[in-house]
Amino acid sequence: MSDPAQLLSNLLGPRGWLAGGDAAAHMRDWLDRCGAPPLGVARPATTREVAEIVRLCAAHGLAIVPQGGNTGLCCAAIDGQGGNVILSLARMNRIGQPDQASGSVEVEAGAVLAALHESLASHGLIFPMHLGAEGSAQIGGLIGTNAGGSHALRYGMMQDLVLGLEVVLADGTVWDGMRAVQKDNAGYQLRRLFCGAEGTLGIVTCAVLRLYPAPRRRASALLVAPGLDALVEFGTRLRAEAGEFLSGLEFFGDTGLGFVLDHVDVGGFPLSARGPAYLLVELASASDHVPLDDILLAQFEHGVECGLILDGVLAASDAQRAHFWKLREELPEGQRLEGPQLKHDISVPPGRIAAFVSEAGELCGRLLPGVRANPFGHLGDGNIHYNLSPPPGAPDFGEVAGKIGTALAALATGMSGSFAAEHGLGRTKIALADATRGAVERRLMATLKQALDPAFLFNPDVIVARNAKE
Amino acid sequence: MSDPAQLLSNLLGPRGWLAGGDAAAHMRDWLDRCGAPPLGVARPATTREVAEIVRLCAAHGLAIVPQGGNTGLCCAAIDGQGGNVILSLARMNRIGQPDQASGSVEVEAGAVLAALHESLASHGLIFPMHLGAEGSAQIGGLIGTNAGGSHALRYGMMQDLVLGLEVVLADGTVWDGMRAVQKDNAGYQLRRLFCGAEGTLGIVTCAVLRLYPAPRRRASALLVAPGLDALVEFGTRLRAEAGEFLSGLEFFGDTGLGFVLDHVDVGGFPLSARGPAYLLVELASASDHVPLDDILLAQFEHGVECGLILDGVLAASDAQRAHFWKLREELPEGQRLEGPQLKHDISVPPGRIAAFVSEAGELCGRLLPGVRANPFGHLGDGNIHYNLSPPPGAPDFGEVAGKIGTALAALATGMSGSFAAEHGLGRTKIALADATRGAVERRLMATLKQALDPAFLFNPDVIVARNAKE
Repeated sequence: MSDPAQLLSNLLGPRGWLAGGDAAAHMRDWLDRCGAPPLGVARPATTREVAEIVRLCAAHGLAIVPQGGNTGLCCAAIDGQGGNVILSLARMNRIGQPDQASGSVEVEAGAVLAALHESLASHGLIFPMHLGAEGSAQIGGLIGTNAGGSHALRYGMMQDLVLGLEVVLADGTVWDGMRAVQKDNAGYQLRRLFCGAEGTLGIVTCAVLRLYPAPRRRASALLVAPGLDALVEFGTRLRAEAGEFLSGLEFFGDTGLGFVLDHVDVGGFPLSARGPAYLLVELASASDHVPLDDILLAQFEHGVECGLILDGVLAASDAQRAHFWKLREELPEGQRLEGPQLKHDISVPPGRIAAFVSEAGELCGRLLPGVRANPFGHLGDGNIHYNLSPPPGAPDFGEVAGKIGTALAALATGMSGSFAAEHGLGRTKIALADATRGAVERRLMATLKQALDPAFLFNPDVIVARNAKE
Repeated sequence: MSDPAQLLSNLLGPRGWLAGGDAAAHMRDWLDRCGAPPLGVARPATTREVAEIVRLCAAHGLAIVPQGGNTGLCCAAIDGQGGNVILSLARMNRIGQPDQASGSVEVEAGAVLAALHESLASHGLIFPMHLGAEGSAQIGGLIGTNAGGSHALRYGMMQDLVLGLEVVLADGTVWDGMRAVQKDNAGYQLRRLFCGAEGTLGIVTCAVLRLYPAPRRRASALLVAPGLDALVEFGTRLRAEAGEFLSGLEFFGDTGLGFVLDHVDVGGFPLSARGPAYLLVELASASDHVPLDDILLAQFEHGVECGLILDGVLAASDAQRAHFWKLREELPEGQRLEGPQLKHDISVPPGRIAAFVSEAGELCGRLLPGVRANPFGHLGDGNIHYNLSPPPGAPDFGEVAGKIGTALAALATGMSGSFAAEHGLGRTKIALADATRGAVERRLMATLKQALDPAFLFNPDVIVARNAKE
């Protein structure tokens, strides 16, 4: 009996192996842009089963595509070719008791981020990773993509929050790196290497994550500014004056706000007049002794005096704070409902955000007159989601989509930034990486892939293409 | 003409190539434990010269040992074998103008840490890496060892502070990863891989480092506690109540304090009575609106009420704060002057510090009755410098030194910790790594070394031994 589907079915049982129609829910990415029918979906219950799947697939020349919550934006978690095995760890979703004295927790890769948040609520601890998809995104996927989100300016990205990992390697062995310490310099930083590898170097099955004390106080404001350059200057000052409390610093423009107000029921806009640029500021502290509202108000008033801020409002309640965040978080949905769009995941040094958006606007306007830019994102870490809608009335972007992507990537690169800030490369951005990054860097990545997964068993054609020359 | 020394001398000129007696200052590690005479010391002035040195050494089968300030503790920066080339980037020590709006600065690898601190002082920015050797340690060495230091609990280790890198690879090509953004998910996290690689995968020539706003206010206290377990409990509470301001949380015991007071002129002990355990707490904020002294005093008083703290004093001046830090920072020097010692660089989850020290004490006492333990370190991140002095009157540790090291490593490992927390493996801890870490992990490291430096050109026998089986 050498039919691999049958062998996998025997190994994993009916709950552990989905084929045919049962596998359909795992086939396409959530934007429904990519994904061919897999041989099936393996849903192991233990690390040992993961290792057996790896050995079995290796023996039969089947590739393995790890899939978390399938909320990614770069088609990294689907079977691009078809006929391979999608690996879902949804059944491995245990969340341990947090270690209060040490600030850490052990979590299986299939646990959903929101479930982790919930499990910590009664312990006075937080896992400070927040993003729109947290109701579906799994820990393993967050580690694979080195997720960023809206609190990265304060707490870092996923790689900064991973203390330990357990990883199944391409030869079916298991690396036990489940340490629970920040400081471990016993050789190469393997935990950092597997984080962000998009499942191409090994299968993360379990992790020890770093926790922080839960803030007890917050202060939030929604501010209107005459332009992004003013916001950048205001943000620099905020970082200097309130750096340690800053937990959110989200910017967006009026085009994006218009999309939200037009298409999503968000309860309206809380200020009397619109403006060119908006900033959502959130301060948070675990201490009861920090006058956060006073600090934020003083900065707001100083911003108004300097002409950097036109208007604004401090949240007077949790409901109002939630309203501010809803305006920000619905930006992608607002633009999706507006029609076709082109997404770009840019980062530049925070001081260059306004320069990037201004130059990108000219550049895109030349390539497609009338195109509508909706730049928004994380002012504190320079991450700009530079998303475009076609000119009013135009059905889509026609042939300039690729040109725009390449030009924006080059612009970000010229500013010491990145064209793949927090979403990864996946299957969709390999060509852009080849075009934008130097040959030395791309070869280094191919060398690493070749060394750790010589048969291209794990997620082939993600990050590094199978035909990449070393 | 194929004499490599002559070729290197021709390439680099008299300032760039030191041989014979001129190289002597670079030969031994600073504890004078290891180092054979090298062929010479290469002191290039540019990245291009580094690349030429790499190609030339590769062609002649010479190994290259990168040496920063030569302040390491694991013999990673000397020529173990002799006859090879030590590479010093001391002439490549330029420090760029900081980018105030983005919080970053470009620095060449040979710049000294203290010089970087100084260059930032007038800009209201800090590079938050502090350690005893900062007057000599170079940026390249700090990156190579992924240095930690006393502020890691707040700002992270070196890998958390490196945004971009330039690295000369084993084939003489140069990887330009000089980005200046926190978020760059365009493939594998190469900057994190080279950080902590101890110069075995490439030569770091330049870096973009992350900067933070300079604190404008500080509050410091020196506290006495009935034991380490009380301190751990107190520390947990401090992290919860003052987490975002905590920038130092250093513990030590009375044995270590005794060594300091006996041997170093530190200006005496500032409290009326000694005790079993001490804690140096430092809070710092960039905001003028945080009542740091009140917060610290309230925690101190609460600690006293709960019996966790016996006595203490808040620093009333910068001079007093400096006095507290001097007591802490002279611990290694005090013990050195006491006589022979055994150093161990342990980390455990912070909540396990007291348990580790207690169990380690019993374990060492069994192996060498009367041995004197001087555990000190970083309460916030669980990093314990578990250093031993022999029993009073005994000349040294005899044959139990190795046994003690192995036993302590096993104890830390059993607590999900590390036997190489912040000093690295170097040449001295490879055997311990082989004995303590699983074969899968050691093989993974050998695979990475083999992939990126197949000829073992860079720092052979550091992290991975030349004869390691892949």
